[in-house]
Amino acid sequence: MTDFSEAEFYQRTEKTQKLMYERGLDAILLCTEAEVRYYTGFRSLFWQSPTRPWFVIIPQSGKPIAIIPEIGRDLMERTWVDEIITWPSPRREDDGVSLLVKVLKGSNNIGLLMGEEASLRMPLNDFETLNSKINGSFIDCSDLVKEVRLVKSELEINVIKQICSIASCAFDRAPQLFHPDQPLNQAFRDFKIALLEAGAEEVPYLVGGAGQDGYSDVISPPSSQPLKTGDILMLDTGSSLKGYFCDFDRNWAIGKASNLAKTAYSKLYNATEVALKKIRPGMTCAQVFSLINSSLGEGDSDIGRMGHGLGIQLTEYPSLMLNDKTVLRENMVITIEPSLSYGDGLMMVHEENICIRDGEPELLTKRAAEELPVLD
Amino acid sequence: MTDFSEAEFYQRTEKTQKLMYERGLDAILLCTEAEVRYYTGFRSLFWQSPTRPWFVIIPQSGKPIAIIPEIGRDLMERTWVDEIITWPSPRREDDGVSLLVKVLKGSNNIGLLMGEEASLRMPLNDFETLNSKINGSFIDCSDLVKEVRLVKSELEINVIKQICSIASCAFDRAPQLFHPDQPLNQAFRDFKIALLEAGAEEVPYLVGGAGQDGYSDVISPPSSQPLKTGDILMLDTGSSLKGYFCDFDRNWAIGKASNLAKTAYSKLYNATEVALKKIRPGMTCAQVFSLINSSLGEGDSDIGRMGHGLGIQLTEYPSLMLNDKTVLRENMVITIEPSLSYGDGLMMVHEENICIRDGEPELLTKRAAEELPVLD
Repeated sequence: MTDFSEAEFYQRTEKTQKLMYERGLDAILLCTEAEVRYYTGFRSLFWQSPTRPWFVIIPQSGKPIAIIPEIGRDLMERTWVDEIITWPSPRREDDGVSLLVKVLKGSNNIGLLMGEEASLRMPLNDFETLNSKINGSFIDCSDLVKEVRLVKSELEINVIKQICSIASCAFDRAPQLFHPDQPLNQAFRDFKIALLEAGAEEVPYLVGGAGQDGYSDVISPPSSQPLKTGDILMLDTGSSLKGYFCDFDRNWAIGKASNLAKTAYSKLYNATEVALKKIRPGMTCAQVFSLINSSLGEGDSDIGRMGHGLGIQLTEYPSLMLNDKTVLRENMVITIEPSLSYGDGLMMVHEENICIRDGEPELLTKRAAEELPVLD
Repeated sequence: MTDFSEAEFYQRTEKTQKLMYERGLDAILLCTEAEVRYYTGFRSLFWQSPTRPWFVIIPQSGKPIAIIPEIGRDLMERTWVDEIITWPSPRREDDGVSLLVKVLKGSNNIGLLMGEEASLRMPLNDFETLNSKINGSFIDCSDLVKEVRLVKSELEINVIKQICSIASCAFDRAPQLFHPDQPLNQAFRDFKIALLEAGAEEVPYLVGGAGQDGYSDVISPPSSQPLKTGDILMLDTGSSLKGYFCDFDRNWAIGKASNLAKTAYSKLYNATEVALKKIRPGMTCAQVFSLINSSLGEGDSDIGRMGHGLGIQLTEYPSLMLNDKTVLRENMVITIEPSLSYGDGLMMVHEENICIRDGEPELLTKRAAEELPVLD
């Protein structure tokens, strides 16, 4: 009834419990969308409402325990989880806290995601109440959960491959979709529609930019500025299927391409090509960063990271950065995302998604064109 | 350069600072997307990546201060904020914490959202480090920020009206969009496309259900089950424009409608009608809940809330619930969302969006059809 069979969730939980045992954790408390989904298969857009908290506890052995708003019971019953405790949320005076206290009462060392990339998706007041009412104490287990999530199963890789393929099909339609005089926000809208038509379930993330010979801004919402001949258009999408993301971009020249833009494109293409050939299990993220950065030659990166993990979140650890010493292992899925600054405040970004394999990585995206494509 | 002029952000900040003064707060620390956007106008999809934390501090007087990843500087510079402090995030050893310590060093009472609906969007470890390094202490200011956000400006109301109108146009296309034998997930996809075509910027939220005479589940992702004659199809969308949401649904019968479904529809239509006529400033949320619930007569609600606030989030406080005593005031925007359980585990939900006005509320959505529409 969920996106994967019970065996998948069993493996994730078992791997986690093995590490919990090694580290002396009696339980792990989860309250964030990605982790609750990862361990239970519970996938719902209801997380977008901040009103209700949702909790899952991973015990030392056995299945995860769900402590969730009553409104989620039916959907949780269709997952592999057996023990589902609910309350009529929102209930201001006690939004699940007393239930958490009950379930956690025998636990001394309780894991909680407190480290990098973690959020506490419950009111801090409630967390402090909880903390004061339990006997045990909370211990950061970010590394433990990261360790489990880093390496993907073949089922996960397969879904990511599917959404990469869907987005690749949508990108292939660029010559029909984009044209001079088209407002940038219209290009964004048309591309979102193309992604949905190609089979994406959700398009939560579409960013990009456009400008003469390159762009300078890739995090703003699109303006209504029309595309002009000589513009470089870049679109970068995190679309999803069964809750798994692709995250890659494509660049096009509108009408014609300057040598400046063509040169930047080639440098980025070649740096990506080097990464696609040379990345191997056993390399650290820092080494991959250096590999890409040195392929870019004189190019300079503003972003400081050249890629990141990918899976049930648009970006996951690790980061391809100089200070990330995470060792790449088989079946990790990452993005390769070199960027280049050039000209007068311009930038260009390329991105592909790969799976680390024994030998050369497996390319999950359809490779970008070798030369900057010109849309007439 | 942002979605509103500086005057709008000035008013929000000034109102907040007046309350801060009354309550003796020296500063407020914000770390969540909605609040950062509310006070600065900074709107970006980059929040979807969990990698980087973003902070805004509201001082006792003057403009908000942004303490954000370097990658966001350009966009923040286009807002009304003058003081923008950045660091090359992600930087594991110090992801903004030392900058926060510096800016907060003179503050004794520091407001933080710790109450209902709040999250802490930064690693708890970093928060604890911050807490140990500042002289002052954190105090829950959820009520204060809620008080400011509850009442919308005419500019905000106008944007919500626009996105309601866009979604109403998309709903009007139902006869062309939905038909027997169409898989439910295809209906979802087609409707998302219709919303984008009608002018929605984002469609982050689309839920719904379908089943004979009614549905039983409205929080799951759609299955590929084909629509059948006699099914009731419901779609409920939170689409957005300039970062503001609509949140309403429509129900249709596929091919034909049973008396059971028609009766449920009429009850919900009439209960909504009563609310649309009788809601007035000065009533409490609990009173509105009772008003709707008693109009439903024998009907019984599973959800326990009959509507909620609406704005820069899909759901905002207050909740139309028996235990919410919030008093409705002019220019609050809320959803009216009665639901009914009937038959053998079936349910139906109606939803409209209104603005509380002096006298009758202003309907922001195009009113649902008086009788259950049948799609042939």
